[in-house]
Amino acid sequence: MVLDITNIDLYTILTAIGIIFLKFLVIIIVYAIVKSLGTKIISRLFERATKRQGLTLGRAKTLEKLTINIFTYSLIFFLVIMVLENVFDVRTTAILAGAGIVGLAIGFGAQGIVSDVVTGFFLLLEKQVDVDDYVTTAGFSGIVEEVGLRTTKIRDFDGSLHYVPNREISNLTNHSRGNMRALIDIGISYDDNIDFAIQVMQNVCDQVAAEDETIIEGPNVVGVQGLGDSDVVIRIIGKTENMQQWAVERKLRKALKEALDANGIDIPFPHQVYIEKKD
Amino acid sequence: MVLDITNIDLYTILTAIGIIFLKFLVIIIVYAIVKSLGTKIISRLFERATKRQGLTLGRAKTLEKLTINIFTYSLIFFLVIMVLENVFDVRTTAILAGAGIVGLAIGFGAQGIVSDVVTGFFLLLEKQVDVDDYVTTAGFSGIVEEVGLRTTKIRDFDGSLHYVPNREISNLTNHSRGNMRALIDIGISYDDNIDFAIQVMQNVCDQVAAEDETIIEGPNVVGVQGLGDSDVVIRIIGKTENMQQWAVERKLRKALKEALDANGIDIPFPHQVYIEKKD
Amino acid sequence: MVLDITNIDLYTILTAIGIIFLKFLVIIIVYAIVKSLGTKIISRLFERATKRQGLTLGRAKTLEKLTINIFTYSLIFFLVIMVLENVFDVRTTAILAGAGIVGLAIGFGAQGIVSDVVTGFFLLLEKQVDVDDYVTTAGFSGIVEEVGLRTTKIRDFDGSLHYVPNREISNLTNHSRGNMRALIDIGISYDDNIDFAIQVMQNVCDQVAAEDETIIEGPNVVGVQGLGDSDVVIRIIGKTENMQQWAVERKLRKALKEALDANGIDIPFPHQVYIEKKD
Amino acid sequence: MVLDITNIDLYTILTAIGIIFLKFLVIIIVYAIVKSLGTKIISRLFERATKRQGLTLGRAKTLEKLTINIFTYSLIFFLVIMVLENVFDVRTTAILAGAGIVGLAIGFGAQGIVSDVVTGFFLLLEKQVDVDDYVTTAGFSGIVEEVGLRTTKIRDFDGSLHYVPNREISNLTNHSRGNMRALIDIGISYDDNIDFAIQVMQNVCDQVAAEDETIIEGPNVVGVQGLGDSDVVIRIIGKTENMQQWAVERKLRKALKEALDANGIDIPFPHQVYIEKKD
Amino acid sequence: MVLDITNIDLYTILTAIGIIFLKFLVIIIVYAIVKSLGTKIISRLFERATKRQGLTLGRAKTLEKLTINIFTYSLIFFLVIMVLENVFDVRTTAILAGAGIVGLAIGFGAQGIVSDVVTGFFLLLEKQVDVDDYVTTAGFSGIVEEVGLRTTKIRDFDGSLHYVPNREISNLTNHSRGNMRALIDIGISYDDNIDFAIQVMQNVCDQVAAEDETIIEGPNVVGVQGLGDSDVVIRIIGKTENMQQWAVERKLRKALKEALDANGIDIPFPHQVYIEKKD
Amino acid sequence: MVLDITNIDLYTILTAIGIIFLKFLVIIIVYAIVKSLGTKIISRLFERATKRQGLTLGRAKTLEKLTINIFTYSLIFFLVIMVLENVFDVRTTAILAGAGIVGLAIGFGAQGIVSDVVTGFFLLLEKQVDVDDYVTTAGFSGIVEEVGLRTTKIRDFDGSLHYVPNREISNLTNHSRGNMRALIDIGISYDDNIDFAIQVMQNVCDQVAAEDETIIEGPNVVGVQGLGDSDVVIRIIGKTENMQQWAVERKLRKALKEALDANGIDIPFPHQVYIEKKD
Amino acid sequence: MVLDITNIDLYTILTAIGIIFLKFLVIIIVYAIVKSLGTKIISRLFERATKRQGLTLGRAKTLEKLTINIFTYSLIFFLVIMVLENVFDVRTTAILAGAGIVGLAIGFGAQGIVSDVVTGFFLLLEKQVDVDDYVTTAGFSGIVEEVGLRTTKIRDFDGSLHYVPNREISNLTNHSRGNMRALIDIGISYDDNIDFAIQVMQNVCDQVAAEDETIIEGPNVVGVQGLGDSDVVIRIIGKTENMQQWAVERKLRKALKEALDANGIDIPFPHQVYIEKKD
Repeated sequence: MVLDITNIDLYTILTAIGIIFLKFLVIIIVYAIVKSLGTKIISRLFERATKRQGLTLGRAKTLEKLTINIFTYSLIFFLVIMVLENVFDVRTTAILAGAGIVGLAIGFGAQGIVSDVVTGFFLLLEKQVDVDDYVTTAGFSGIVEEVGLRTTKIRDFDGSLHYVPNREISNLTNHSRGNMRALIDIGISYDDNIDFAIQVMQNVCDQVAAEDETIIEGPNVVGVQGLGDSDVVIRIIGKTENMQQWAVERKLRKALKEALDANGIDIPFPHQVYIEKKD
Repeated sequence: MVLDITNIDLYTILTAIGIIFLKFLVIIIVYAIVKSLGTKIISRLFERATKRQGLTLGRAKTLEKLTINIFTYSLIFFLVIMVLENVFDVRTTAILAGAGIVGLAIGFGAQGIVSDVVTGFFLLLEKQVDVDDYVTTAGFSGIVEEVGLRTTKIRDFDGSLHYVPNREISNLTNHSRGNMRALIDIGISYDDNIDFAIQVMQNVCDQVAAEDETIIEGPNVVGVQGLGDSDVVIRIIGKTENMQQWAVERKLRKALKEALDANGIDIPFPHQVYIEKKD
Repeated sequence: MVLDITNIDLYTILTAIGIIFLKFLVIIIVYAIVKSLGTKIISRLFERATKRQGLTLGRAKTLEKLTINIFTYSLIFFLVIMVLENVFDVRTTAILAGAGIVGLAIGFGAQGIVSDVVTGFFLLLEKQVDVDDYVTTAGFSGIVEEVGLRTTKIRDFDGSLHYVPNREISNLTNHSRGNMRALIDIGISYDDNIDFAIQVMQNVCDQVAAEDETIIEGPNVVGVQGLGDSDVVIRIIGKTENMQQWAVERKLRKALKEALDANGIDIPFPHQVYIEKKD
Repeated sequence: MVLDITNIDLYTILTAIGIIFLKFLVIIIVYAIVKSLGTKIISRLFERATKRQGLTLGRAKTLEKLTINIFTYSLIFFLVIMVLENVFDVRTTAILAGAGIVGLAIGFGAQGIVSDVVTGFFLLLEKQVDVDDYVTTAGFSGIVEEVGLRTTKIRDFDGSLHYVPNREISNLTNHSRGNMRALIDIGISYDDNIDFAIQVMQNVCDQVAAEDETIIEGPNVVGVQGLGDSDVVIRIIGKTENMQQWAVERKLRKALKEALDANGIDIPFPHQVYIEKKD
Repeated sequence: MVLDITNIDLYTILTAIGIIFLKFLVIIIVYAIVKSLGTKIISRLFERATKRQGLTLGRAKTLEKLTINIFTYSLIFFLVIMVLENVFDVRTTAILAGAGIVGLAIGFGAQGIVSDVVTGFFLLLEKQVDVDDYVTTAGFSGIVEEVGLRTTKIRDFDGSLHYVPNREISNLTNHSRGNMRALIDIGISYDDNIDFAIQVMQNVCDQVAAEDETIIEGPNVVGVQGLGDSDVVIRIIGKTENMQQWAVERKLRKALKEALDANGIDIPFPHQVYIEKKD
Repeated sequence: MVLDITNIDLYTILTAIGIIFLKFLVIIIVYAIVKSLGTKIISRLFERATKRQGLTLGRAKTLEKLTINIFTYSLIFFLVIMVLENVFDVRTTAILAGAGIVGLAIGFGAQGIVSDVVTGFFLLLEKQVDVDDYVTTAGFSGIVEEVGLRTTKIRDFDGSLHYVPNREISNLTNHSRGNMRALIDIGISYDDNIDFAIQVMQNVCDQVAAEDETIIEGPNVVGVQGLGDSDVVIRIIGKTENMQQWAVERKLRKALKEALDANGIDIPFPHQVYIEKKD
Repeated sequence: MVLDITNIDLYTILTAIGIIFLKFLVIIIVYAIVKSLGTKIISRLFERATKRQGLTLGRAKTLEKLTINIFTYSLIFFLVIMVLENVFDVRTTAILAGAGIVGLAIGFGAQGIVSDVVTGFFLLLEKQVDVDDYVTTAGFSGIVEEVGLRTTKIRDFDGSLHYVPNREISNLTNHSRGNMRALIDIGISYDDNIDFAIQVMQNVCDQVAAEDETIIEGPNVVGVQGLGDSDVVIRIIGKTENMQQWAVERKLRKALKEALDANGIDIPFPHQVYIEKKD
């Protein structure tokens, strides 16, 4: 700033003040416009997302508030710096450098936290996971107890509670999104007649399906799945209501075992042929 | 900005305003040209891609709209800054620094999200994967239910639904891109005649192939694949319609087992030679 | 700084000093406002967190003090630089560059330490883990002895003490957050009657449940979990008070074994069918 | 830009315009020279590469066009900025900052895509892999169907189609670059005479080699490869035409097994010595 | 630097020199204050750490000296640059750029070394590990021989010496921080009476505990830990003085084996049920 | 650039041109000096490396040419920019920013390629690997066919050709750098006399060593390497010419087996003690 | 640079030249001081390191020379730039930008090389590893043949030569730093008397220790290490001279086996109880 100090008079000073004031006004006006515009855009975006994705109102409000807060704080930060710089002519390098260092600290130290919140934001926005879903993610399985901004809580079937930072949730398997498959492999003896065994097993399947309302489809014997070391493996596949697959599988296993016994069909133990050799 | 305030007169002010106006005009004109040019180029690129790659019209429109939006918002951002800087002579360091910090935040926190969208863009543009394809990627297998900008949904055969963020999809195996192989290894006894066994098995293959329309090629006995611990392994290879390979393999296994039984050829159990030693 | 040294007079000097003083004042005032405002916001945030999350008063005070310290030191750093730059007109590039290099050093060398403290901050703030909880994290299991800002100490059941840097704690499984499951798989012989065995086992379960007050739910026989190589696997599931699951499981195992013995039901050894072949 | 607006006259304006024009001219000339030079250099480089590496003309033209496009677009980008900056005296910080942010976005979001294209460029330029080669890379094996700029398609032997992004292709094993080895390990009994067994096996090898034209070298018995738990392992090695190794190995296995049978040499089952102990 | 050389006279020169001198003075004073203040703060911090953490005086002095050295060298670096820049008006961009490149080199090349020293600093400051502790870290186990600033030496029980760079030490398990558990699993026959066996084993435990002063708690029979393939597994747990767990376990094993033998209780060999089948 | 346009006369213009010319001269001279000096230093360095490391002349020339090219192109790049900036007073920010973006692109996209060339440079300069060496690196083993700037080709023993990008080559094991060890473990029966067995085996070793010229040292029986489940393991170690180790091992195995047979020493099959128990 | 060209006279020119000369002098003086000071500090540091760490003189000289070279070249680089900038007033942005790009290239392309040299520097400076030591590092074991600045050569016991880039050496296990442990586990029958067996084994240990001078301590029978499936495991531990552990272990194994045989103590084969069941 070059200031020719020798020739200062009132006129000059007033002019200078006028210019300062003008600049201030321009900045404030731009700020006001950007703020109201930004807030409106954010609100409308969330409205649309709520409708399209069927978000609960609570979830949507939480996310909208968070977004508007971040937006407002950033704007105020810019406003302060621009006023200091353009109006009061204060060099703000220090503030900006400080902000830069803070940015770097975020980058390295708190990277995980920021990443958690960003992923959490999307977990809440989308519908990949709801409370009470049975999911597998980040190496854990269990019932979701809470989806938070930073961590998701998953209750294991053994009673443990897994705290999973959202950033660890990339691939997610949701086991509560439709009917499940019941699958049973039964090994029968190489000496038994395959057709007869399949007949017996299909009968059991039909009987169980008739009795159990949680079964949606099948179960059916699909055929010879493998020729094992000691047994011919027959596969049975069915479809059940969600979370009922294990109960159905247990029921089927018991019924199949008893039916095979009743029909003289062997579920064979491991076999071995031995050849004696004189030493 | 050096402003010699002592000698201001109307002429000077007008000249200054004229220059400001001129600069504004130049910027607006450049903006208009770049915008219309850019939009045209983008449209034409998508037109060409649609034709060449056989994209569905819906997919192409979605991608085009996304691209034009991003392009327009970037241009407006530049326009605002350049006008503020060159016309109103406002120092925009703060805005730019702010944009830089946002960039950094993207880099670290939301990196995954950006990466998802970029990969999603290419997944939609190319034809690696369609809805209803049976694919294996990111450690999951199943039928694709939806290819989104951020996540791809894969329905596992057991009924679970895998949400795979697109960035996790790098290697992708598509099992629905042509005919599939049916492969069966059958172990026969070391005492059996190999030629006879192959003859029997080839007969079965021919018979099954004649009956089953989903078989495209073979199946044929290709020969002795291995000399195992207890058996001589014979391999059979055929080609079937897509997704029919398992049914064909099951049918073949059953037919082969029955034919070998009928011809007195043994599928041997594990063997062991015992040498008794007196203690 | 262009200084026309030839025409210096007292008036000029006074004016210059006045401007310097004014700038100084503005900076100090801004500093004072920002400081008192920031401190208040931090205090209020911690108050709210204490209430909402049920933090102990000690934990909250520690975290609040740490936060205010960091905030104050950062402000003083900015104050010094801005005064030097704007008031004394000293070029501070060196200081800023130095701070940048320090930032880089943090980024690479002490990255882990910073990351530890940030994660530690959240571990103390949230309630994922308390002293005396039984947790599994970072590959270690044991009782938490201390949650520090930099490391968490976990006492293994074998007496070893694990020092886990907080940054290593991402997924955390807390085994002290509710009742636990007792699960026992018992294999019975293929020759035994499944219904009778289940009856015997359920009786044992009811008896044990009646005697043991740490059992919350069940235990119950859920059915045939598997058809193993040599046995039919029956599963029993119950719920116990936290940390009592192992004692309950041991008690159940003993009672089940004795009841099965008494009822002539076999827990079978591995079976093998052998077929003698002449050499 | 300091513009003394009070003393403007025609002469000054003309001079200024002249200088602007001169600068414009210099920039355009430099641009023209660099462009024509660069294009020539690129063309010549590809010509040379085509000759030396035996590239197909199609491949070379594709790569050349891509290179020249990138080069031209970069040049135009520079031209525009330099003209705006030096001739029209417009501050281009915003454009450059924008370009920087785009660069950052490339760095993080689209990093994989850029990396794919760069690697794809070299895959096309060099001759590591051709369509119809049988390769192993990125954990997949199969016949190459297409080498693209972004992905390479590999058809697995089971009919699946692997889409491998080029960046995943670092180590690449090409199985179609010369003759292949056929290797067979045969275990004979500890009681058999090694020399006799080797004699029998070498005879089989010679016979097969005489009959099969796809065999290039050997196969020969190389000696006792191991003293196993139950057998003395003899190794046979030969060389065959590319892709014929499996057929030759199958043929050899069958012939060897039959010859050993005919000569009373045993391929032994697992042996075990058992010592009975009274309880 | 604009220097109107035409009108230089003594007065001007003196004024200029005066300003230079003033600036120099300000810098030196700030330097002196910062230095003495910083040194005092560092000293006080270490005093406090020594008291609170019970550091040995030697360790504390080493760390304090290192810290003050680094602090002083950094200050001198800043002093030199600021004097050159502000007093002698020498452009120091080159020095700063050089320092930046050095910083980059640190970042990439010597990153590990810096990281080692930072972690080493905290290893010395905290009390995770002392010389002669038995620790497991970075995949190595052994007795700590030396904790250095860059590497920690661990003597394996087999005599090897592991040099572990401190940066590799993140999770650390210290086995010398309290009493250790002795744990023995003994399998008894399915035919034996569990209550009687537990009685016999508890007697042995009481006897050994009475004789051995290194035993702190127990050992006690906790119950049936598992129903194995061939045995009922009984678990015994006790607590011993640090590093005595192995000796106690060995003593217990011998005594238990002898007592079980004396009472006719079997530690069973693996069992197998054989079913003969005619071929 | 402040240009007082009102008072231009011939003298001023000439002076300005003179200054421009002078600057140009200085730059050109510095350029010439740096270039000739740099080239000489590079040449001398390669001369020395050639002598000291025994590089082939071809290799050295290739590397020298590459180095000088890179050096010259960099210098020309600097020359152009400095002339434009200092002589023609053209602002070169755009060019530099462009170069920066290119640098970034290298950093992310082509990082692998640059890394390949740098490592390739050192692979050629040092003597870790020569064509026809048998090496193991990056998970591949085989005979080196070519060491290129970007990739190294390794021919597997099975005939496949591995293309290994040089950056993947960090640890490298060269099996063609001296004599190799032949190592054989022979298990003898627990009933046999160890001293006698060692005597017999040593005799075989001496005999084979006498007959085979590729054996450099030993082979000798070193003693009882282990007490296995069913056998006492005796180890034999010898040294052979490079690549002859396998042939020697095969020869030794055959000779040892025959000698042990002749002396009635057993290479035992797996043993098992059977205890019959009545059910 | 503002140069009022209209009023140039000899006096002005001389003054300007004088100032240039003065600046040059200051820079040269600072350079000279920094250089001589730096060199002295480096020399003294190495002197001290040599004494304290017992470095060989050769090693120390190599490292000192390298350090001084790097220091001098850096100084010259700074000198040139500062002279060009401050004395000849040439804008050096281009050079600095160039240096920055080179730095980036180092960062990404040659990162490994720089990292190798830095680690190599410390490997030479410290005494973790000497030529002829037997070490395990980076997954390789063997005798160190050479510790270089970039790679370390390790000769495997099988004759292969491992080239390990120094950066791969983080954890390093040195097996040549003191006496080694000899450890033998012997399984005796469950039927044998433990006390008697320990007596016999201890006698053997004492006898071997008396005969063998490479044994430093023990060996002693420490007790019952485990109750295995078929045997009671007795552990023997001793200490031997470095590299003699294997020979001692072999000798002990032979002597123990013979002594146990002589005393009728069984080293048992795997046991199995079998229970025959009628089908």
